[in-house]
Amino acid sequence: MIGCGAMGTALGLRLLGLSWEVRVYNRSPERTAPLRDAGASAHATPAEAVAGADWVATVLTDSAALRALLFCDQGIASVPAAGRRLVDLGTHQPAQLAALGAESAAAGWPLVEAPMTGSVHDASHGTLHFLVGGAEEDVEWASPLLWALGRGVHHLGGLGAGNTAKLALNLLVGVMAGGLGEAIALLRAHGLAVDSFLDALDGSGLASPLYRRLGQRYLDGDHAPRFSLANLEKDLRWECEHALASGLQPRLAPALCRLLGPLTEEAKRRDYSALIAHLAGEPSC
Amino acid sequence: MIGCGAMGTALGLRLLGLSWEVRVYNRSPERTAPLRDAGASAHATPAEAVAGADWVATVLTDSAALRALLFCDQGIASVPAAGRRLVDLGTHQPAQLAALGAESAAAGWPLVEAPMTGSVHDASHGTLHFLVGGAEEDVEWASPLLWALGRGVHHLGGLGAGNTAKLALNLLVGVMAGGLGEAIALLRAHGLAVDSFLDALDGSGLASPLYRRLGQRYLDGDHAPRFSLANLEKDLRWECEHALASGLQPRLAPALCRLLGPLTEEAKRRDYSALIAHLAGEPSC
Repeated sequence: MIGCGAMGTALGLRLLGLSWEVRVYNRSPERTAPLRDAGASAHATPAEAVAGADWVATVLTDSAALRALLFCDQGIASVPAAGRRLVDLGTHQPAQLAALGAESAAAGWPLVEAPMTGSVHDASHGTLHFLVGGAEEDVEWASPLLWALGRGVHHLGGLGAGNTAKLALNLLVGVMAGGLGEAIALLRAHGLAVDSFLDALDGSGLASPLYRRLGQRYLDGDHAPRFSLANLEKDLRWECEHALASGLQPRLAPALCRLLGPLTEEAKRRDYSALIAHLAGEPSC
Repeated sequence: MIGCGAMGTALGLRLLGLSWEVRVYNRSPERTAPLRDAGASAHATPAEAVAGADWVATVLTDSAALRALLFCDQGIASVPAAGRRLVDLGTHQPAQLAALGAESAAAGWPLVEAPMTGSVHDASHGTLHFLVGGAEEDVEWASPLLWALGRGVHHLGGLGAGNTAKLALNLLVGVMAGGLGEAIALLRAHGLAVDSFLDALDGSGLASPLYRRLGQRYLDGDHAPRFSLANLEKDLRWECEHALASGLQPRLAPALCRLLGPLTEEAKRRDYSALIAHLAGEPSC
């Protein structure tokens, strides 16, 4: 497991819970502590972590970080792949990921992309789904790892397809959060019972765990970051750029980008549930 | 039951199925046939239909139709209310509905608004929820009728509150349908597997019966109208106007209005699932 942020740590802990042997590397070594405490071995270089592993998975901030860990001194690509593939679980701009995949394959490591649906909670409970892109045989090779980590592996096409789908999914996260915010803003402008509206929504054909979760966090004033507004904005901007570059005329993604853009950096560090409070004000009860 | 369109008919049939006595009136008498065949009595004027009824419910196209049937010759208001209330189940512009409620109350008939979540299918199966507005005692009075017709009665505030909530809910219908359309458009621009994406969506925390239903109708090319794009556009325009009049700055509702506006009238007669096909093209498989 290369990358021990919140998601990488949760995924590593899940594998340890399934009695897998887990070898980890993180640029800041102190972040490997929770995994070491749970029985993983921590390594000083990517090459050392990769050397004895059956599968190599990366969860990093962006494509630049992935490229660095592939091609740096003592990087992943310095170790012979010997039939293995590199399974990247992060979210990337699809074109960048596809380009990086070509470089990685040329260095002997075919790449499989498998960005995730869900949060740390899903990673811990094995309820993630993976939006997978890559060649058929590479995806098959990666499947045992992915099925250990989640409950759904959806192969959408060649390299880039998984991250295209991930951005499309996060567009839906954005419109649902933004829509709920505009809906509740209207209710609050007229002094109406927000909790009753959320109950009715939950009983309707629109019901979604996302609405239930965001609605409750709004009512509780709980905006501790699970998925920050900054990350949502970044994914929406990528989705918007990707759609425009694909010759499409997106309407909702740009509207959301215009909505999120003016927020302060501090506001964007909050959970995306804070978008409801931003649009509708904090609940009075 | 005043108004025997698709919803009024389904609601009347449900009451007949519960062994209620149902008296109906419709401006075009031939539309009462399915209810007559099932045992309802049809009447020549609103006054006659209302005369012997315990509850009076209306499901009409708009506020003008409701006003006409209240105050026309032999209209509802020509009959003494004798403690009864008028329960309107349609969708209206909240300000118009509130004004009409004041007129109705002045004529002796306090109004309860109870616009519905869901479609004809929910009406038939008793799975509707009602977004209710009106005075507490009027809503209590209407409750036995509403609980017979659905499985949730959500009292949101005074007259106008129910329709404000209904428009807020339909904003969410709009953003979900529009968002799914933009998401699938992106997938299709890259030749990706739409059905796999829909599976992943259904396994994620965003999952919603609406996505499952719209996705399937898209894949099936089935756009027979349950909720037409024309009606969705009308509700979104009302929501947008209502938000602007409330001093809010809506972003998503206007973006959707700009998306739907240019469609032809013929295109707008199709089900709102046709929005996916409009944005993403018909599926090739």
